[in-house]
Amino acid sequence: MNIGLIGLGKMGYNLALNMKDHGHNVIATDVNAEAVAKIGQEGVTTYASNKELVDALPSPKVVWLMVPAGDITEQVVEEVAGYMTEGDIMIDGGNSNYKDTLRRGEMLKQKGIYFVDCGTSGGMEGARHGVCTMIGADPEAWKHVEGLFRDISIENGYLYTGNPGSGHFLKMVHNGIEYGMMQAIAEGYEILDKSQFDYDYEQVSRVWNNGSVIRSWLIELMENAFKKDPKLEGIRGVMQSSGEGKWTVETALDLQASAPVIALSQFMRYRSLENDTFHGKVVAALRNEFGGHAVVKSE
Amino acid sequence: MNIGLIGLGKMGYNLALNMKDHGHNVIATDVNAEAVAKIGQEGVTTYASNKELVDALPSPKVVWLMVPAGDITEQVVEEVAGYMTEGDIMIDGGNSNYKDTLRRGEMLKQKGIYFVDCGTSGGMEGARHGVCTMIGADPEAWKHVEGLFRDISIENGYLYTGNPGSGHFLKMVHNGIEYGMMQAIAEGYEILDKSQFDYDYEQVSRVWNNGSVIRSWLIELMENAFKKDPKLEGIRGVMQSSGEGKWTVETALDLQASAPVIALSQFMRYRSLENDTFHGKVVAALRNEFGGHAVVKSE
Repeated sequence: MNIGLIGLGKMGYNLALNMKDHGHNVIATDVNAEAVAKIGQEGVTTYASNKELVDALPSPKVVWLMVPAGDITEQVVEEVAGYMTEGDIMIDGGNSNYKDTLRRGEMLKQKGIYFVDCGTSGGMEGARHGVCTMIGADPEAWKHVEGLFRDISIENGYLYTGNPGSGHFLKMVHNGIEYGMMQAIAEGYEILDKSQFDYDYEQVSRVWNNGSVIRSWLIELMENAFKKDPKLEGIRGVMQSSGEGKWTVETALDLQASAPVIALSQFMRYRSLENDTFHGKVVAALRNEFGGHAVVKSE
Repeated sequence: MNIGLIGLGKMGYNLALNMKDHGHNVIATDVNAEAVAKIGQEGVTTYASNKELVDALPSPKVVWLMVPAGDITEQVVEEVAGYMTEGDIMIDGGNSNYKDTLRRGEMLKQKGIYFVDCGTSGGMEGARHGVCTMIGADPEAWKHVEGLFRDISIENGYLYTGNPGSGHFLKMVHNGIEYGMMQAIAEGYEILDKSQFDYDYEQVSRVWNNGSVIRSWLIELMENAFKKDPKLEGIRGVMQSSGEGKWTVETALDLQASAPVIALSQFMRYRSLENDTFHGKVVAALRNEFGGHAVVKSE
């Protein structure tokens, strides 16, 4: 299949090589000239602009976007749609908010362009050698691109999830679950670390990952992390987040779905970004007001 | 090795066969005569009482207890200790609270008996064909029994965790993490179920378990569960709990360790046991008092 890939970041770059390995004729571009030059050396035909890339594709054109979610995706979708005609297919493989996806899909539908949303999981290694994909699409578009997803995904690792938007929605919920699982795992190690016992966390992760109920890829990754840094002394406990956890919580609120652990995991990430909190000051002030309890003064 | 196994419930029964498969001379007993008769037919020598079983063992005697945590374990530990002498080894493979384990270990130490605590994970299938074990013990006792744990555990699935109590503590925290992971996973499916999309949960579980970040044994079990009952219509959302989640939260409180997601997962289980709640009545009453908001009357 002929595919035009826009976006050669960590995921896009590896996906391009993955597609090429499976005999697809992938051509690529990126705003980063260095990434373009590098993948050119891997034998991928490259173009200097989105327009040239799309123009070079035979009809029906299939373009895969692998660019940051939000404004950049919005701009690229609008630009690329201008180069496309009826029957062409645009795939968004990024972590877009499903509401944006629904809106973009409607917009493109008016021009007869299919918009396919693909939630992509598995990290760089997955992108390179077998990714996990959840794909929402019109059935006609799906028919045209299923082979591509089968090829680049790990065995049993792709799913047509139905209507447009359902792929990104499912990936969003996947990430919400991920936030909750990560926080639960992290709290467990926190308790071990404050305990009277002297555990080797790499060994703990290793044994937990062989035969226990919590065995999982995340525990496997903890074994790797503790192997590099047995007490994680080189890392501060600052927990950044991209959008998906927040969107999962917002969606739960919209749907009146009870999801307190996922919500709390998101809030704990926000808490970790601050050295001090205003809510902490408020509680300290109140204890002082009603009980005369000492406060820790600001330095 | 000669081992006397007390307790032929689901775990103990399968562990006995596992030990036998590995060439250990396991003898067994249980208060349930039916289980005793059944395992006798499998070629395991059985005894009608704990005393007869312990008396039949050569010195140093090794006895493995696999009985319910709490009062029953307490009674059996006290009884069996009475039949043991200096240098004998008692292994508690159940889900005992590590504080009880520490106390029992001290008690047995005064008689020169080693008390080995083994946290056991992996369910019946694991017990039968390769279990996950976390073992706290005095080094001398560990030296004597390590071969047994190596044999009955899955490859890379046993860990000597150090001082007595550390095995049960680690298993407790494992279960606390399990509670949090399960609640996070469950909330994800809850959001899918209230969404506008029509997912096949068996297929969702299948794709999540191939290449995604949240791939895990728990997601694998969800694929099995949804295969049997696609919308879980035959099951009510009543979430029982055994003691380990509660103990993990209590321990976090004792240690001043921040573990809100594990705690909340435990509280959500309690919530699920009630059709109505008193806190719900209180909130409804207050909304009515200050804002005249309608309440739902009791039937």
